[in-house]
Amino acid sequence: MKLQLALDRMTIDSAVAVARSTTESVDWVEVGTSLIKEYGKESILAMRRALPDKTIVADVKTMDNVRYEFELCFRAGADVVTLMAAAPSATIESGIEVAAEYGKTVILDLLNCPIEDIGRYANRENVILCWHLGKDEQETTGIQANFFKRAALNHPGTRWAFAGGLSLENTHEAAAHHPHVLIVGSAITSAQNPAQTARKFRLLIEEVEA
Amino acid sequence: MKLQLALDRMTIDSAVAVARSTTESVDWVEVGTSLIKEYGKESILAMRRALPDKTIVADVKTMDNVRYEFELCFRAGADVVTLMAAAPSATIESGIEVAAEYGKTVILDLLNCPIEDIGRYANRENVILCWHLGKDEQETTGIQANFFKRAALNHPGTRWAFAGGLSLENTHEAAAHHPHVLIVGSAITSAQNPAQTARKFRLLIEEVEA
Repeated sequence: MKLQLALDRMTIDSAVAVARSTTESVDWVEVGTSLIKEYGKESILAMRRALPDKTIVADVKTMDNVRYEFELCFRAGADVVTLMAAAPSATIESGIEVAAEYGKTVILDLLNCPIEDIGRYANRENVILCWHLGKDEQETTGIQANFFKRAALNHPGTRWAFAGGLSLENTHEAAAHHPHVLIVGSAITSAQNPAQTARKFRLLIEEVEA
Repeated sequence: MKLQLALDRMTIDSAVAVARSTTESVDWVEVGTSLIKEYGKESILAMRRALPDKTIVADVKTMDNVRYEFELCFRAGADVVTLMAAAPSATIESGIEVAAEYGKTVILDLLNCPIEDIGRYANRENVILCWHLGKDEQETTGIQANFFKRAALNHPGTRWAFAGGLSLENTHEAAAHHPHVLIVGSAITSAQNPAQTARKFRLLIEEVEA
């Protein structure tokens, strides 16, 4: 199980510093949507320069113009890109193809999409399905304790990512469903000691995997 | 009827140059998603510096984290921001509120969303509904001649924007449905003479409005 650290709502320098300080515990480093929209591709380039050997996820949340956006991310050094499952199927199909062409992976973000609709993308070789509770949803409706259970019920064999509101309190439960990737953001980045907190998430994952 | 020029897949300098050369014919200048994701907020800031009195649209295509993304755009000088209708309703409601707080307008982008689903956003004061055929869809399925007709059938009184594949050939038909905004991109930016082509779009609109 991979631990992905989502870096959002900070400067590039802060993001690089947090990523560096947590590198032992974190598998995948995510350049968050807010960094990409605030600083552009420079946010990905800077992370790649700082961490040449790390898997870097560009949370570019593509809805259209997928070849252009993905190539922009790949050229800047991303290994994994995100694509909205709510995008037109022409965009999704093309995005999976473009990523395969570059030997890269797509996280298909199910934000506000019923799982049922994306069955056809469930077992693609370079696709991870991301069951995602949005930040704005969390603030309105609260974290739903059973949110991650729903994803585990369907499509056995699919590689899942879980994102949205993961904390030291609920991660054990989420990890028990054995997703391929657990995505944690502010629970680490807003912690007093991000490195130590990332280590705690890592230990939780190791417990589940033991 | 406003003519909005969408600037995509070019450098900031080129975008500013095209915007400047077409300023007599174009009402709203759109900093495209690809510019925001490639160059970040600097793309909006540069356009605002170059055209201090123009209405600037930031095609930020927000799916989540809406207050942060919108404030980023407003601080950089945007007057109008885009929000995906496919986003969670918590994001849409909050986005409309944040924009109202700043006295700004939201273009709610209906890419891959059935019109029926967004009836509740149809008559909000600071919202324009954008009937949008994606670039990737255009390349796969071709421009559908009757695409814009469908939008005009529902929700009378709504302010519409039409986007996606508008050309000198089909704009008269689209304009005949009297949208609030016609969004034109590559038909102008890829023309040999963008200024002259923008003028032709303006004349088409004036014909319909006469």
